[in-house]
Amino acid sequence: MGTVSKALSLLTLFNHGRLEIGLSDITRLSGMNKATVYRLMSELQAQGFVEQVGSDRAYRLGPEVLRLAALREAAVPILSVSQDILKKLCDLTGETAHVSLVRGKQLNTLTHAYSPRHGTRVTMEDAEILSFHATGSGLAYLAFAPSAFVEDVLAQPLSRHTTETETDPKRLREAISKARILGIAESVGGFEADVHSHAAPIFGPNREPIGSLAVAAPVARITPDLKTLIRREVKIAALDLTHRIGGFCPSDYPQEKAA
Amino acid sequence: MGTVSKALSLLTLFNHGRLEIGLSDITRLSGMNKATVYRLMSELQAQGFVEQVGSDRAYRLGPEVLRLAALREAAVPILSVSQDILKKLCDLTGETAHVSLVRGKQLNTLTHAYSPRHGTRVTMEDAEILSFHATGSGLAYLAFAPSAFVEDVLAQPLSRHTTETETDPKRLREAISKARILGIAESVGGFEADVHSHAAPIFGPNREPIGSLAVAAPVARITPDLKTLIRREVKIAALDLTHRIGGFCPSDYPQEKAA
Repeated sequence: MGTVSKALSLLTLFNHGRLEIGLSDITRLSGMNKATVYRLMSELQAQGFVEQVGSDRAYRLGPEVLRLAALREAAVPILSVSQDILKKLCDLTGETAHVSLVRGKQLNTLTHAYSPRHGTRVTMEDAEILSFHATGSGLAYLAFAPSAFVEDVLAQPLSRHTTETETDPKRLREAISKARILGIAESVGGFEADVHSHAAPIFGPNREPIGSLAVAAPVARITPDLKTLIRREVKIAALDLTHRIGGFCPSDYPQEKAA
Repeated sequence: MGTVSKALSLLTLFNHGRLEIGLSDITRLSGMNKATVYRLMSELQAQGFVEQVGSDRAYRLGPEVLRLAALREAAVPILSVSQDILKKLCDLTGETAHVSLVRGKQLNTLTHAYSPRHGTRVTMEDAEILSFHATGSGLAYLAFAPSAFVEDVLAQPLSRHTTETETDPKRLREAISKARILGIAESVGGFEADVHSHAAPIFGPNREPIGSLAVAAPVARITPDLKTLIRREVKIAALDLTHRIGGFCPSDYPQEKAA
């Protein structure tokens, strides 16, 4: 790994559970030696990618990432287009909707929207890590991902997030095949108890999957009618998003099939 | 400059006028040699900070910056707090409001809000570069910046954006002194013709200025009453933003003085 990649890999240590990280923890988590970590963090700091705060001088992400994100959004307005589409989807379904994107080996939520219709709802955070095997979003992505990627995911230890999480590779392969035929995947309580998620993949300019669009509802609220509505609207919304960011579905994506 | 800083400095070449840049242009703009640029861009690409698009394989910023921005926002919710405050300010004034942040030697707009009250309005883009000497936001920042920073800005060639742009360092120093006394700065048509902007500084945790909050209105709409309203509300909004992001005003900031 080159020096630049090493430095940027340190930024991947930040997540919702670790918004601030001290030098010792970065050293431990990265497996690099402390002098190297210090030098790389200092360079990241000089460019505004991280800053030090508090009496313990812990690191957190810096303001430069906001400027870059605004320019990325000007080039590819996936965030604003997603928010627009998710808002409509929430209005139609009365449930929480979200978009997640794959980066490397990770599926991260990009943005979400809530419906005000019910007093209870599935809550989300942006930049949350979703499991491929335990979420509708992950399975929808895997259904159209290269088989090497799928095998790689299934070869890793498959975390059991709830008592309902499916961790049997054979049954997961069946779920993936089904999602490929229908163009939509679902997960009932696999990532968080009592959450029923439906998701469809989003595709990029080369017909490759880049992430998923999903609706997550409390299991107790799912009726056959609501389920039919969600499955139809999730698929329409995901296709809409794919088109509006300049993407294309693969030729075998079942655009028309009743999901 | 270290290798990491070199690589990250290439990311600063992207702006609204250059959302996509080819390898030759990056080479020319950076002054580095082509082989080095190619190697650094390849490392940035491997980490998702840039991606190549189109038949000419031009580079644009990649999706990883969106993930980092969401985590920065979770740590320091300046974007969401700003949007909240700007929306109220637009409602109160009927004009466009925006927040900009200083990164290194540059003042960049972070976010903006429009009022629906009038058929015409000042329009903005996020991540736009604002001149320190020609904008209310820039002057408000300079009024509380270290004197070395101010001297550095005034020693550079001062671009004339419009026929109204003030470029005389002596008169600019007077404007900065006045802004320091009042806690608010203004610019009439200095950056864009027919735009009257009022701005107040935003401060960070160490009482240092980090950017500005401004209201920009068409010159033709500015009445004495509207001007009084804008000056009062811009200052209140900037103080509110400073407090809500965990910042503090310097002890000599004129919080109470009628602006």
